[in-house]
Amino acid sequence: MTTTASPTAATNASVSASDRSSVFHSWSAQGSLAPLPIAGGLGSTVWDVDGREYLDFSSQLVNVNIGHQHPRVVAAIQEQAARLTTVAPAHANETRAEAARLVLDRAPEGFSKVFFTNGGADANENAIRMARLVTGRDKVVSHYRSYHGNTGAAIVATGDWRRMPNEFARGHVHVFGPYLYRSEFWADSPEQESERALRHLERVIQSEGPDTIAAILLETIPGTAGILVPPPGYLSGARALADRYGILLILDEVMAGFARTGEWFAFDAFDVRPDLITFAKGVNSGYVPVGGVVISDPIAHHFDERVFPGGLTYSGHPLAAASVVATINAMAEEGVVENAKRIGADVLGPALRELSRHEVVGEVRGTGVFWAVELVADRDARTPLEAARMGSLKSDLLARGLLPFTAENRLHVVPPAVVTDEEARRGVAIIDEALAAL
Amino acid sequence: MTTTASPTAATNASVSASDRSSVFHSWSAQGSLAPLPIAGGLGSTVWDVDGREYLDFSSQLVNVNIGHQHPRVVAAIQEQAARLTTVAPAHANETRAEAARLVLDRAPEGFSKVFFTNGGADANENAIRMARLVTGRDKVVSHYRSYHGNTGAAIVATGDWRRMPNEFARGHVHVFGPYLYRSEFWADSPEQESERALRHLERVIQSEGPDTIAAILLETIPGTAGILVPPPGYLSGARALADRYGILLILDEVMAGFARTGEWFAFDAFDVRPDLITFAKGVNSGYVPVGGVVISDPIAHHFDERVFPGGLTYSGHPLAAASVVATINAMAEEGVVENAKRIGADVLGPALRELSRHEVVGEVRGTGVFWAVELVADRDARTPLEAARMGSLKSDLLARGLLPFTAENRLHVVPPAVVTDEEARRGVAIIDEALAAL
Ligand SMILES: Cc1ncc(COP(=O)(O)O)c(C=O)c1O
Ligand SMILES: Cc1ncc(COP(=O)(O)O)c(C=O)c1O
Repeated sequence: MTTTASPTAATNASVSASDRSSVFHSWSAQGSLAPLPIAGGLGSTVWDVDGREYLDFSSQLVNVNIGHQHPRVVAAIQEQAARLTTVAPAHANETRAEAARLVLDRAPEGFSKVFFTNGGADANENAIRMARLVTGRDKVVSHYRSYHGNTGAAIVATGDWRRMPNEFARGHVHVFGPYLYRSEFWADSPEQESERALRHLERVIQSEGPDTIAAILLETIPGTAGILVPPPGYLSGARALADRYGILLILDEVMAGFARTGEWFAFDAFDVRPDLITFAKGVNSGYVPVGGVVISDPIAHHFDERVFPGGLTYSGHPLAAASVVATINAMAEEGVVENAKRIGADVLGPALRELSRHEVVGEVRGTGVFWAVELVADRDARTPLEAARMGSLKSDLLARGLLPFTAENRLHVVPPAVVTDEEARRGVAIIDEALAAL
Repeated sequence: MTTTASPTAATNASVSASDRSSVFHSWSAQGSLAPLPIAGGLGSTVWDVDGREYLDFSSQLVNVNIGHQHPRVVAAIQEQAARLTTVAPAHANETRAEAARLVLDRAPEGFSKVFFTNGGADANENAIRMARLVTGRDKVVSHYRSYHGNTGAAIVATGDWRRMPNEFARGHVHVFGPYLYRSEFWADSPEQESERALRHLERVIQSEGPDTIAAILLETIPGTAGILVPPPGYLSGARALADRYGILLILDEVMAGFARTGEWFAFDAFDVRPDLITFAKGVNSGYVPVGGVVISDPIAHHFDERVFPGGLTYSGHPLAAASVVATINAMAEEGVVENAKRIGADVLGPALRELSRHEVVGEVRGTGVFWAVELVADRDARTPLEAARMGSLKSDLLARGLLPFTAENRLHVVPPAVVTDEEARRGVAIIDEALAAL
């Protein structure tokens, strides 16, 4: 498996050591980290500094949808770097306008402007800002099972534990979303789960006071929280509630968008149309930091005569824009979205469902290249697999040459959307072996 | 002045039109924008799509400290793009570790880790988060005359008007900082202004309750608010107050850092040492979106065993890191920091002070390549120059081939730190003509 030598004299050990001496890492205690030193990648493969290869079934943070080091996107970055790396947001720039146009081309009718940010968190910050200003209301309703980013409003919109040490923003309310496997609503069918989750959402809206709520902010398919594909009727039901109460609907497509689910936007597979769409990750596979908000006409027009009080130095950054343009064009021409859909339906989904043979597999769910395998210590009680065993599974997968994405008691199977049939099968075979060894 | 043809068939008009049809801009009403379409740049010069050149006395958003399209930084981006554009923050990466080391090399003794973000706003978000968690206190004291970014906490830490439509975070308190020309303290000397501003700061701390305050967050030299170089004793006095009350001191070096003031960190020219430093802009001239927090030992150690509850997908992005490494190395080897200092002291400062000949010039202040010319309708009353006349000045400067940075009634003279003596003189001569014509 040792095939690709590092271009420098560095080793895994030397890079790890210099990382540990100076780099502060996200979401962790710094004392006990042993980060994997990654030196390069291509397609669905990455390699460490010592040259050991791994099948990347994490897509890093579920962002490398087009695969690592896609030659067209790399070339576009290099060309734009030679031309113009940076320009203030107040000016106009051809590449930026082209990136906006290509994003808008993928959005439904009735969306007319793109506001670019640096990532997913500030995309949500600005969508929330727009919703508050347009409605004149404060509150934002989002799911407990959600992640929306690490900045002031985004982290409090986030439902998971990461919110709790960071609750310095007001105006956020959380609801339970549909999750049949661990239903909060004593439901026993997808239809019932959907109906009851909507009933719960409406009761919270009524109890908070509809006139106080600016937006319902939902991940189209909650990602980090467990790839919780919403049951039929939930998203369109949320849309109907938003309309009934004069609330705006923001769909967070940061993780789910741009091929991850086998669609350009994950909501394309559902009967729903949001007022604001937030994106990042897949839009350029994270080759350059970028995110943004796709804005529907009435909201865009609201700010024709009124000043929009938000902005950032790198909004519409040309280097980021060039990578967006190249990514969307390459995805379109190479059928990357279609590949993700087909692989999910024909290869990854079926192969993963077969893993239910293993006692530890509680549920397999997903779509496209966006799957979760929920692991349990006890199948009947659905007790989450203990952290220690999740840790062993993770190490074992790495040892077997697969870079995994784990979250709590789940293995998220999230390869690039360009993954081949052979790679998808090979990856699932590795997972199969590791589950057998567990 | 028409020298550099656009590489495409586009024109100013066509790029403006496509911008207006799809791009949503920061901090503005969208209906009446006429953005300048910028196609390229080199050093202190940019050109529009029609090929007209401008001396860039804005450095875009005061970020292009190393000048436009520095060949070494461009090459480093291109090389890193070919090698590895993106990697998840949880892994280690050689380029990222090197970028952290080079930033730490410029910081004072006692700083040991760098947390990378995408820009200035999220750098401040994370510094505030650290201060709150380390102290167990909530409040952040910052200046009314300040800008700290557009996300949830950063925008409420911001003191200027941009805070007001966005006040959804709690725990922020604002004070007046020193600004002798428009003293809030009835002071008539720099010493008195400093003393009284400190007295005011201490009274607010006492009145809020010292035990409730996590951090004092200050721009070392407030930038957007007017390049308000603090009088002797203010920053060290704030440090002393922080120490007295167990409060952490965060210095926001996003605009002031990395050569802008003729120092690596603007606070190097003052007798003060912060607990946390935030940076962005100059660290890589914004060639790739990046920012970060430089963390002093006790704060870094606090998170050795405790989980740090913050993070973002592009923390420590390799492409950004490569641009940081190349920028810092090029700045060091080419004496860019020294150039800014010398130009400020010998060329820009003296030439700008001579503009006081014009009746409309109220005050000239600054250091390095970081200057403000405050314009007044009435010298004695110090009445700010009307917006309409500021607008004419701006258009006139553009027509004369200088890209200006204006804020309220001020012209900020903020060319790249690589500006030559000839360019600095030429720029000031253009300003001189425009002021005469006003
Ligand atoms: C659904 C969702 N929204 C927002 C974010 C935040 O994006 P970023 O890390 O770029 O700020 C993430 C990141 O994982 C996400 O998954
Ligand atoms: C002092 C200061 N802090 C923070 C910021 C915010 O940086 P960004 O626009 O990269 O979020 C700015 C931007 O102008 C700034 O000048």
